[in-house]
Amino acid sequence: MREEYMEKLVQCIRQAGLDGMLICPGEEMRFLTGFSPMFCERFQGLFVKADGTAFYVCNLLYGEEMREQLPPEVPVYTWFDGDVMPERVKEALKEQGLLGGRIGVNRDAVAFQLLEIKERADIIFCDGKPLIEEMRIRKSGEELENLRRSAAIVDQVFLKVLDRICPGVTEASLQEFLLEEMSRLGGESPECIVGIGANSSYPHYCGSSGRAKQQDVVLMDYGCTCGGMYSDISRTVFVGEPTKQQREAYELVKRANLEAESLVKEGAWIPDIDRRAREVLDEKGYAWTMINRLGHGIGYTIHEAPDIKQSHHRNLERGMAFSIEPGIYLGGEFGIRIEDVVIVNEAGEREVLNQASKELIIL
Amino acid sequence: MREEYMEKLVQCIRQAGLDGMLICPGEEMRFLTGFSPMFCERFQGLFVKADGTAFYVCNLLYGEEMREQLPPEVPVYTWFDGDVMPERVKEALKEQGLLGGRIGVNRDAVAFQLLEIKERADIIFCDGKPLIEEMRIRKSGEELENLRRSAAIVDQVFLKVLDRICPGVTEASLQEFLLEEMSRLGGESPECIVGIGANSSYPHYCGSSGRAKQQDVVLMDYGCTCGGMYSDISRTVFVGEPTKQQREAYELVKRANLEAESLVKEGAWIPDIDRRAREVLDEKGYAWTMINRLGHGIGYTIHEAPDIKQSHHRNLERGMAFSIEPGIYLGGEFGIRIEDVVIVNEAGEREVLNQASKELIIL
Repeated sequence: MREEYMEKLVQCIRQAGLDGMLICPGEEMRFLTGFSPMFCERFQGLFVKADGTAFYVCNLLYGEEMREQLPPEVPVYTWFDGDVMPERVKEALKEQGLLGGRIGVNRDAVAFQLLEIKERADIIFCDGKPLIEEMRIRKSGEELENLRRSAAIVDQVFLKVLDRICPGVTEASLQEFLLEEMSRLGGESPECIVGIGANSSYPHYCGSSGRAKQQDVVLMDYGCTCGGMYSDISRTVFVGEPTKQQREAYELVKRANLEAESLVKEGAWIPDIDRRAREVLDEKGYAWTMINRLGHGIGYTIHEAPDIKQSHHRNLERGMAFSIEPGIYLGGEFGIRIEDVVIVNEAGEREVLNQASKELIIL
Repeated sequence: MREEYMEKLVQCIRQAGLDGMLICPGEEMRFLTGFSPMFCERFQGLFVKADGTAFYVCNLLYGEEMREQLPPEVPVYTWFDGDVMPERVKEALKEQGLLGGRIGVNRDAVAFQLLEIKERADIIFCDGKPLIEEMRIRKSGEELENLRRSAAIVDQVFLKVLDRICPGVTEASLQEFLLEEMSRLGGESPECIVGIGANSSYPHYCGSSGRAKQQDVVLMDYGCTCGGMYSDISRTVFVGEPTKQQREAYELVKRANLEAESLVKEGAWIPDIDRRAREVLDEKGYAWTMINRLGHGIGYTIHEAPDIKQSHHRNLERGMAFSIEPGIYLGGEFGIRIEDVVIVNEAGEREVLNQASKELIIL
């Protein structure tokens, strides 16, 4: 168990007025306990109570394994395939004094399992995703340092990938190169998106069949982890001279990126940052094309709190880390995105972690 | 849209007294609509109403793609990252007359998203997993034929893999061989488990580092799809002469398999089948080691309805397909499992699809 974070979680549970939190297998369980089993259709999860104690419920198949993995003070309740699962869960909840209580559930909990339990047991489940995110939203000095190291890796890779971009280059070959280079520099869990030409116009493009011709946009979005902390960068470059419209769009996105980043500091109001980027894009009527949030929090996962968007009514705090990634997406034509990871550092100041050039690059 | 199954689903919705069903991205959505988008932290799903109509809700990022994929009569409601998602979902539900209604949710729905929606919208979500399973529980003649073809592939592979098993063989090499052979014979989505020695004693073992020595058990569990329908077979063989206890355990498991299978026919009571297998194992006091269900339904997924277990109070019907897989698992020592896929065929009779030998094999 990661004691420091378990204590933070228990604080969050109390502040939210909950009786406990259910953490189902996945990255968050591994983060808290150092271990996460396979998660199949059989319900299992770690219950953390407001009094700071915890217990585990799982199918008999996983009982022995979980007893070995968890500290001895965490009881493991098992149910058997031949049982009515919710009845056994109800017994465990009763023994642990949680019947009639309110339990937050983490992002990995599966709806049908909880609905099955609720049909038999007097329990209120509520959205606990924000609690776990809150537990990790203010990064420690060590975590910020790992974010910096992770950003430095993707910056280095950017310099190298430029040599590979030319007419005829394929999305697949650039993807392979980005992944290999991140690994070579010590980055773990590397991931990337490469969209060439019209493929760049879809913010969530995930194909690999495109090939660059003369006068094409190449959008690269990639990242990895270092010490468990993610990096995430996007840069868009041109093969051959861009069109007048592409050049105009690029300069707008660049300015939207810079102006939004300039607002980042302790106390800044999150919706203001999102709005500034859109205002810049709208100077030439492009804001409607940016159909997503300006940014997402980042750290132990690629997407975590705080989202940088209109509906997130909150001030920035020291230790927060997030992307700033304005874009112009003209469906079927081209897309441009410039993304950095930015933190509110130990001094409460803006620190843009990515140093890779944002100048318009023609290859 | 797969009209035949959409009609079955609407019937199930009405019979369950629901106002609609929410199907989130995954295999079930692909089954019904021929397409399933990536599913991230942003809520999206297909709502099917009791009146037979449907609509889709997704983030603006996916709107265009979903409009292209879905038939024109299915409206697509989008929400924007800068919106409060549940408010937009609430508007869609209101426009579609579902506010205040009861909606079943499929197995892929994520709990936190539904809890967020429930915080703002007057809606009751309930477990709809059984409805989708019911829609596919009675296989058609064509589906049964594909199950037979799929079983024939894994049977053929069993004959070939025997030549590979000898002292020194590794789990990894047997896994590779099984996967390759299934593919070579036309099986798609091949999967396998190989547990050697003590690894065989964990029913959900998923490692690959084991190596056979003289006097080891080799447990193989594998399957693939053919025409979309899964096969699933387990056989356990011996490297060198088994111990007396292993031989006893093997013969018991074999008899448990055969006796349980002998009960399969239209109208049979599911718990009786599970009980028979355990009674056989308990003749020598081994039933306590079988810590899982006797079998699981199979078809478009590896695990679907009907589970063959004590708590499943239902009679077998024509067209049902499921595994029968008794086992003896002596943790840390050895495990033995013999698994076939069995159907209640078009004539209402038992048909054991796997013909691979269950005789004790020593290699």
